[in-house]
Amino acid sequence: MTTDTKLSTLGEFGLIDRIAAHVAGGEGVITGIGDDAAVTVLTPGMQLLTSTDMLLEDVHFRTTWHDPLALGRKSLGVSISDVAAMGAIPRWALLSLAIPAGFPLEFLDRFTEGFLAMAGEHGVTLIGGDTCSSKNGLVISVTIMAEQFPHLILRRSGARAGDEIWVSGTLGDAALVLSLLEDGAVCDEPSLLSRLLDPSPRTRVGHALAESGLVSAMIDVSDGLLADFGHIAQQSGVGGVLYLERLPISADFRRRASRFPSFPHHLILSGGEDYELAFTAAAENHEKIESIVKNSGIQATAVGIVTSFSGVEVVMEDGSRYIPRKPGFTHSI
Amino acid sequence: MTTDTKLSTLGEFGLIDRIAAHVAGGEGVITGIGDDAAVTVLTPGMQLLTSTDMLLEDVHFRTTWHDPLALGRKSLGVSISDVAAMGAIPRWALLSLAIPAGFPLEFLDRFTEGFLAMAGEHGVTLIGGDTCSSKNGLVISVTIMAEQFPHLILRRSGARAGDEIWVSGTLGDAALVLSLLEDGAVCDEPSLLSRLLDPSPRTRVGHALAESGLVSAMIDVSDGLLADFGHIAQQSGVGGVLYLERLPISADFRRRASRFPSFPHHLILSGGEDYELAFTAAAENHEKIESIVKNSGIQATAVGIVTSFSGVEVVMEDGSRYIPRKPGFTHSI
Repeated sequence: MTTDTKLSTLGEFGLIDRIAAHVAGGEGVITGIGDDAAVTVLTPGMQLLTSTDMLLEDVHFRTTWHDPLALGRKSLGVSISDVAAMGAIPRWALLSLAIPAGFPLEFLDRFTEGFLAMAGEHGVTLIGGDTCSSKNGLVISVTIMAEQFPHLILRRSGARAGDEIWVSGTLGDAALVLSLLEDGAVCDEPSLLSRLLDPSPRTRVGHALAESGLVSAMIDVSDGLLADFGHIAQQSGVGGVLYLERLPISADFRRRASRFPSFPHHLILSGGEDYELAFTAAAENHEKIESIVKNSGIQATAVGIVTSFSGVEVVMEDGSRYIPRKPGFTHSI
Repeated sequence: MTTDTKLSTLGEFGLIDRIAAHVAGGEGVITGIGDDAAVTVLTPGMQLLTSTDMLLEDVHFRTTWHDPLALGRKSLGVSISDVAAMGAIPRWALLSLAIPAGFPLEFLDRFTEGFLAMAGEHGVTLIGGDTCSSKNGLVISVTIMAEQFPHLILRRSGARAGDEIWVSGTLGDAALVLSLLEDGAVCDEPSLLSRLLDPSPRTRVGHALAESGLVSAMIDVSDGLLADFGHIAQQSGVGGVLYLERLPISADFRRRASRFPSFPHHLILSGGEDYELAFTAAAENHEKIESIVKNSGIQATAVGIVTSFSGVEVVMEDGSRYIPRKPGFTHSI
C-alpha cells in the first residue's frame, strides 16, 4: 500500500472490513464486527461497566504531534483508564471514526494497529463501531466495556475521614509536555513524551487494589489531582488535605521545571491527562497498599489525608495553605 | 432560562449535572451518571448487545432543518433501531457530545429532552457519556446496550433459500424528504418530514418477531433495502430477488413522486435512513408473520424471495431485471 491511498477509494464498508481483518475473537465475544450489534456474554456473577470518550482533532490531539500509532493506543487507553479506576477487567471496545475526505489510509492503518496493540495488552477485543465522513478533522469515539464482581467494584463514593490519599506513578508529566509542545519547544525525551502521547492505563494495579478489599474509593486522574480527588471528596461527603511536597514528580519533570519562571505546581495539581489512579485507604493498611502496588510493577505515594470537613486544600512547602476556587481542567489544546 | 445562555458559562461538569438531573434510575442500573464508569446488571441468562453511531453536523444533520427535540430523539433512535434489528430489548445508553463554543444551551436542553423522551418510550436509561468542546459543529456519539436470551437473538446470517423477504413500514420516505430539503423545496407534511427527522425504531415488532422463533435473519434498513438485504444475503451465503412492484411506499411518497422526471425507484431501493426492519422467514409462515406484525401495530410486506445463487436482483414492473453494481448508501448530506 502506498501513502497516497485514500479512504474514498475504499468506502465505509471497505474500511470496516480492513479493520475487522485484524481482529480475532476474544473472551466472551459471541458476535463481533459485522452485524447490527455485537453480542457478548459476561462472566457469571459479574456486572457490566461501561465508559465512553470522544477525541477531536485540534481539541484533544494534533496530527502534527501525534504519531498515528500512539494516537490509536491513546484513544483506547484513556477509556481503559476509566474502567481500571473502578477495579474492573476490561473486555470489549467499540470504535467510531469520522474521517475527513482525502485522509490518508496509511494513517488509519497505523491508528488501527496502535488501537489493537493497546487492546491486546489489556485483554480487550474490538467488537464494533461506526465510520462516517467528517467535514472538519478526525473525530474518534471509543466505548469500553468491562466486568467485575459487585463487591470488588470501586467507586468514588467510599472515602472515609482519616483514610490516606494515594496516587500512582507521577503527576504533571503530560501537562508539562503539552505546555512544551504548545510553546513550540523541543521535547525529545521519549519517556516524557509518551506520558502525553501514549499513556499507560493502570489496569493491573487497579484490579489488584480492587481484589485487596482495602481501597475505599478510586478515580483516574484525567483532569488533575485536585479536580479528581475533589470528585471523590464530593461524592464521599468528605474533604481532604494534599501535601504538595509529597506529590510524586518524575526526574524528567524536575529537570524541565527549571525553564519555568517559578516551579510549575499548577501542572502537578491541575494539569490534565495523567491517567494515574488516585485512591483512598485506611492508614493502618499503608504497608499492605505499598506491597500490592509494588507487585503490580509501579509505584504509589501517599499524598494526603481524607478529612471530615468538606473541601480540598493543599499544604504548600512553607506550611501555608492553598484552597482552590475552581480545580477543574478542560481537555482543550 | 433565556436563549442566549451559553455552554461556556456552565462548563462541562455543569452540563453533565444538568442532563443527569433529568435521568431517573432504570432497569438493571446499579451506578449511572457520575462515576468513572456506569455499572449495570444484565437479566440472568441474557447476553449483551451493543451498537454505536456517530452523527455530525452538516454530515448527518443540519441545525437549520433539525428541531433540537427531534435531533435528540433521532440520535438515540437510530441506535435503538440497530438492537431492535437483533430482536433485543434496549436497556442503557451512553451519550457523548462535542459542542462548539457559544452553542446555545437552550438547544442542548431541548436536545436532551428529545433524547430522554425517546429513551423513555423504549425503556432505555441514559447511564453516562462524555462532553467536550468542538471547533467545528456539533458531534453526537451514542452507544446503545440491549439484552436478550441467546436463542432469541436474530442475526444477518440465517436466511435460507426459499424464505420470503419482508420489510416493515414503507421505504424511501426519508430519502425523499432529504432530496426535497436539499433542493430547497417546501415539505410541510409532518408525517413525511418525521420519517427523516424523527424516525421510529421498530423495537416492539423486532422483539415480537424474535420471540416468535419464525425469523431466520433480520437487519435494519439504514442504507437502503438493496444494500441492507445485500448484507443478509452475503452473510447468509444466499442471494435474493426483490419485486419492485411489491415494495411498500407511502401515499405521501406516491404523491410527491410526481415531481420527479421519472418515478424515483432509487429512493425506495437505495435511499437511506428508512430505519425499517428487513427480515426473512419461511414462506409457510406467511400468515403467522403477518399476524405478529399486525399485533405490533405496524405493517410488513413480503417483497421477494431468498435464492440459493448469490447476488441480489430486482424484478422491474415490466418483468425486466436490474442487477445493481453497487447498492450502498453513504450517510452524507
